[in-house]
Amino acid sequence: MEYSREALIKAVSAQMPDKRWKHTLGVMASSVKLAEQYGADPERAETAAILHDVAKYWPVESMKEIMEQNGLDTGLLKHDKQLWHAEVGAFVAERDYGIADSDVLNAIRFHTSGREGMSLLERIVCLADYIEPGRDFPGVDHIRKLAKSSLEEGLVAGLDSTISLLLEKRRIIYPLTVLARNDLVRILEENI
Amino acid sequence: MEYSREALIKAVSAQMPDKRWKHTLGVMASSVKLAEQYGADPERAETAAILHDVAKYWPVESMKEIMEQNGLDTGLLKHDKQLWHAEVGAFVAERDYGIADSDVLNAIRFHTSGREGMSLLERIVCLADYIEPGRDFPGVDHIRKLAKSSLEEGLVAGLDSTISLLLEKRRIIYPLTVLARNDLVRILEENI
Repeated sequence: MEYSREALIKAVSAQMPDKRWKHTLGVMASSVKLAEQYGADPERAETAAILHDVAKYWPVESMKEIMEQNGLDTGLLKHDKQLWHAEVGAFVAERDYGIADSDVLNAIRFHTSGREGMSLLERIVCLADYIEPGRDFPGVDHIRKLAKSSLEEGLVAGLDSTISLLLEKRRIIYPLTVLARNDLVRILEENI
Repeated sequence: MEYSREALIKAVSAQMPDKRWKHTLGVMASSVKLAEQYGADPERAETAAILHDVAKYWPVESMKEIMEQNGLDTGLLKHDKQLWHAEVGAFVAERDYGIADSDVLNAIRFHTSGREGMSLLERIVCLADYIEPGRDFPGVDHIRKLAKSSLEEGLVAGLDSTISLLLEKRRIIYPLTVLARNDLVRILEENI
């Protein structure tokens, strides 16, 4: 990595409001804790967490341009803008911050949507984003509780809450989120 | 069609228990009513309704064999068996009952899952399957009410209820159902 932990924190925190940076600090803490519990590398989990929202406050037009000009997943452009920052964030993490670890990059890329076949690190950062201490939404304590005994149970509950919210608000459900949830449900069934 | 309406009714009703045939009679009545209201051909709607559950009580092994030996969508084999009878039903409608109308066949094929780009007839039979008079599940009256003023609003509510139930029961969500629902939500947004 070209950047030290401190330099990375300084550079990324400068790109978002204090409130969002506080959320990132929460995701860092939760990611490290989950990594320690479930046998992932806490340092890589923290690096992904530091960068997961790096593009969250970038102008929509800049995100669109980056996706179009760099062969990123432009299918996302038809979907909720909330999904764009994850794809762009992974690109920016590699280009601007020298992250070469594809697992870290994928943990950033899929932290909002999830996907089929999520790695341990991807599951950790995605779940940490749901349960970091600053989060407060209906059902979050239930997800926190599940996360204590099973990464996958916690993540299914998190993804289910996202899908339910989108149904309730009559918003488009990103298909990859359903595939991620189905995949984890299957994994849990097979492990019974 | 090789079969008269009466012969078709006789042949199909013989393949299921009385209770399920009563459901089919309900779907026939609701399909005809929706077709009249929303400008589809009531006769084609009724034909699709008569045949929509033709394979519902076929042995699972027979359905599997038909799918494998006739180049049907074997991706379904990884999904809930409840979805198989629709794919097999469309095949049987063509092979055994001489239905050549692709819109009628697709209304049978997609009556359980839905799909992106559903035709008027497909929407009618899928919605009728939710709201036929014999149906009794939480929310069915709300769907019936919506169906009176908008086919698409009714169908979104129906598909949403399916997705919610699958979440609740922790069962795999068939991705095509989510695509169908997203597509109808987009259509409704564009028409506002």
